[in-house]
Amino acid sequence: MLSTDSHGSNLTCNLSYAHTTYRKIFIKPKKSKSTMAQEQGITVKKEDNMAEWYSQVVLKSEVADYAPVRGCMVIRPLGYSIWQNIVDFLDKRIKGLGVSNAYFPSFIPESFFKREAEHAKGFSPEVAWVQNKDEDSKERLALRPTSETIMYDSYSKWIRSWRDLPLRINQWCNIVRWEVKDVKMFLRSREFLWQEGHCVYETEEECHNETLLYLEQYRALLEELLAIPVIVGKKTEKEKFAGAKRTYTIEGFMPDGKALQLGTSHDLGQGFAKSFDISYIGKDEKPHIPWQNSWGLSTRTIGGLIMLHSDNKGLVLPPRIAPIKVVVVPIIFKGKEDIVMKSAREIVKKLDCKLDDREGYSSGWKFNEWEMKGVPIRIEIGPRDIKKNQAVLVRRDTAEKMFVKLDSLKETVNSTLEDIQKNLFDKAKEQLDSSITQTEDWNEFLKLIEERKIVKTYFCGDVDCENQIKEETVGATSRCIPMDAEEPNNKKCVHCKKTAKLELFFSKNY
Amino acid sequence: MLSTDSHGSNLTCNLSYAHTTYRKIFIKPKKSKSTMAQEQGITVKKEDNMAEWYSQVVLKSEVADYAPVRGCMVIRPLGYSIWQNIVDFLDKRIKGLGVSNAYFPSFIPESFFKREAEHAKGFSPEVAWVQNKDEDSKERLALRPTSETIMYDSYSKWIRSWRDLPLRINQWCNIVRWEVKDVKMFLRSREFLWQEGHCVYETEEECHNETLLYLEQYRALLEELLAIPVIVGKKTEKEKFAGAKRTYTIEGFMPDGKALQLGTSHDLGQGFAKSFDISYIGKDEKPHIPWQNSWGLSTRTIGGLIMLHSDNKGLVLPPRIAPIKVVVVPIIFKGKEDIVMKSAREIVKKLDCKLDDREGYSSGWKFNEWEMKGVPIRIEIGPRDIKKNQAVLVRRDTAEKMFVKLDSLKETVNSTLEDIQKNLFDKAKEQLDSSITQTEDWNEFLKLIEERKIVKTYFCGDVDCENQIKEETVGATSRCIPMDAEEPNNKKCVHCKKTAKLELFFSKNY
Repeated sequence: MLSTDSHGSNLTCNLSYAHTTYRKIFIKPKKSKSTMAQEQGITVKKEDNMAEWYSQVVLKSEVADYAPVRGCMVIRPLGYSIWQNIVDFLDKRIKGLGVSNAYFPSFIPESFFKREAEHAKGFSPEVAWVQNKDEDSKERLALRPTSETIMYDSYSKWIRSWRDLPLRINQWCNIVRWEVKDVKMFLRSREFLWQEGHCVYETEEECHNETLLYLEQYRALLEELLAIPVIVGKKTEKEKFAGAKRTYTIEGFMPDGKALQLGTSHDLGQGFAKSFDISYIGKDEKPHIPWQNSWGLSTRTIGGLIMLHSDNKGLVLPPRIAPIKVVVVPIIFKGKEDIVMKSAREIVKKLDCKLDDREGYSSGWKFNEWEMKGVPIRIEIGPRDIKKNQAVLVRRDTAEKMFVKLDSLKETVNSTLEDIQKNLFDKAKEQLDSSITQTEDWNEFLKLIEERKIVKTYFCGDVDCENQIKEETVGATSRCIPMDAEEPNNKKCVHCKKTAKLELFFSKNY
Repeated sequence: MLSTDSHGSNLTCNLSYAHTTYRKIFIKPKKSKSTMAQEQGITVKKEDNMAEWYSQVVLKSEVADYAPVRGCMVIRPLGYSIWQNIVDFLDKRIKGLGVSNAYFPSFIPESFFKREAEHAKGFSPEVAWVQNKDEDSKERLALRPTSETIMYDSYSKWIRSWRDLPLRINQWCNIVRWEVKDVKMFLRSREFLWQEGHCVYETEEECHNETLLYLEQYRALLEELLAIPVIVGKKTEKEKFAGAKRTYTIEGFMPDGKALQLGTSHDLGQGFAKSFDISYIGKDEKPHIPWQNSWGLSTRTIGGLIMLHSDNKGLVLPPRIAPIKVVVVPIIFKGKEDIVMKSAREIVKKLDCKLDDREGYSSGWKFNEWEMKGVPIRIEIGPRDIKKNQAVLVRRDTAEKMFVKLDSLKETVNSTLEDIQKNLFDKAKEQLDSSITQTEDWNEFLKLIEERKIVKTYFCGDVDCENQIKEETVGATSRCIPMDAEEPNNKKCVHCKKTAKLELFFSKNY
């Protein structure tokens, strides 16, 4: 059904992240819509070249586009609707947990940034600096790579007494990290959108519990809304957030055998509170230092969503996140226009869904377009269907075609949407489970990493040893210590053979 | 009811925009909550010193705070909730008009910025530049002061045929304009939040009609949600947006006699389309240049909202925008705690509103706090009220107290909320109407401007003449040519006495 003709391959096989090349190939000469239609198909297979396939899906489904600024992307309306649905889901949940939204400046004075030493060290290579135009102050301003420092300065003014705690504030904003030249759509770019929650508590226990509670919201978002099964765990010393005491993570696993970090929640202990002079008068009328956490999830989740579920026909969206869940395409025959349009409109009214009544496009063209854009269910209705009092329902995930009586259409659509959601999750879960392996042997470990598995093993916990593992495996890093991991008993580190302190996962990653 | 004791005035009369001074006075030594309560009151009167009063209202109601970065502010949870309500109202309306949201990079390459000459000239003094860290490209990047240039570059790729039009995209984002050292909360700051709509059309007429249609959404937002009566009109050549053919504006009028521009919609003509190489193949199969508009509304509206309605007890919020519309304060007496709390909870359940059941605060303290935070209706319930099967309802706008039978409480609350909304609008409308004056005489004009009136007069339309008026009046600028203005017939310009071409409003402004 999809074109793989010479126009198509010419257009896309030279796709480059560099804007100039991209513009040259994609843009000139201007093409008419009908020529574009022939080029809509994905011209490489997911299983053959995942990076190229992924770029094509993102571009051709019009989820996002390259920006004329290096390392940046444009989130197009379809991509932004997906983000808005993620925002709505998470925002409602965290508000239910007592979190309020606020907005802090995107500029962070250099002196602030340096106040927490480890934090500054961790982020400084990625910071973009703004030229200060004020004549009487030449302090450089960082564009926020994360907002701990600027927020906690305000917190030190706002927090006085135990009555002001817990303080739970979240911010939805853009973030700048100058880390890549070549944008990887949603996965790595110099600017992205995210939320960052920043809470302050009286006790260590409350802080720790809520650090995990926000992580649980991420798990629910990923598994229940985006149908992405995840591994939940704790980061090693090497991989934890700069300035945190402990970092918890949600890791997804992509079809190319690479892990993708999808959300993190940091137990910050009292480090930032001390650096930023945050204290409160307790019920005992004495000053105390509070406990803090911070937690973030970004537009990167959209990258995971697309890479995991989509196929060689384009985007596949789980129904719960899909901005359009059902599209009705009337099959028009000459002389039957009125009766078909009437039936189509009745269905649209009953299902409260999208109608594609555009003229000048063939039904086949429309089918391709809605498949490319990942709409979970397509309903076709033509004169023959009307005679039989039925419609044709086509699932995006399996391509299965069903003939459904109009009387039971709504019921069938609803149960099919649920089934698609479940099917996508189950398929991904099976893939994840079958990728998880276990070994205590270094050579076996190397082989499994090479095969792009997630390897559970024992580890000494040493940062140097972890650096060596990364080097010797050409890029494998520790994912996390699973939440249910037990203290290793009489085990050796898979690499250095010293006494193991941790049981954890390793794999390649994005 | 509000403290104006020496603590209060000490605390606030030295209020300075400079962060260090602010910190010193406000923060050290740390104060307990009960001391803070005494300091909560506004210590200057709106009618005596509006600038100082306004700062105090914003800070003490916890709508916003000064940021440690010069020229910037922190939008605190109460302020952000107000913004979220504005976003929700407008977002729903523009989506209903076929607009989709997207997100473009906050970085704009210098070469892009310069492509539309007038636009570049208009914005360049305000642009903040980012140091490009790439070794092979040293082109400076502007932080977006507005996004025409970066968006229209993408538009030139996306728009091919008449089928792609109209294209209607909106972006909710942060904006940077390096124009002030001293932040004026919400009114002027180096960073603010806004939406910017950018649409493309086949015909000039469609473009023009929708330019006014988005302006009408702003009017509805301001008048119906925020209870801010506005003047709607067209900007002069001097005051129009850099690069626009025509700029339409929504102007509010503040109690100190200064106008506040609250939203603008620009008919861009074909200028940007030509500069950014946007063209489409029409139904006639020939290439055409499309027509464009752009329109924006920012967090500045929150400044207008606060300044217009609030009073010497703090914030006053119109019910439709208020995050908390009704608060129930139980009046606790020893031995009667249970019965009072039970009644209070029943009311809260019935009205779906906020309950202030905090212990350790007096009722009077709570009254002051909710008045400071602008909650439209306070309901008090104590043992004596319960005996009489009533509650006490207190309006924030008039301080009127009503004793309402519990049976009719919900009804009375709803009608009172409507009445408060109407009352705030009517009061402001009366103020606006009584400020509008008219003259053709220059000396009278000077006198009326001095008296902080909005003066309707005749004008030649010349940019130099308008500059001279600004100079000679120490700051009065043209507001707008009202939508219903007629072509002046045989009239002279109020200033230069040449033939008048326009009838328009002048006033001082923010």
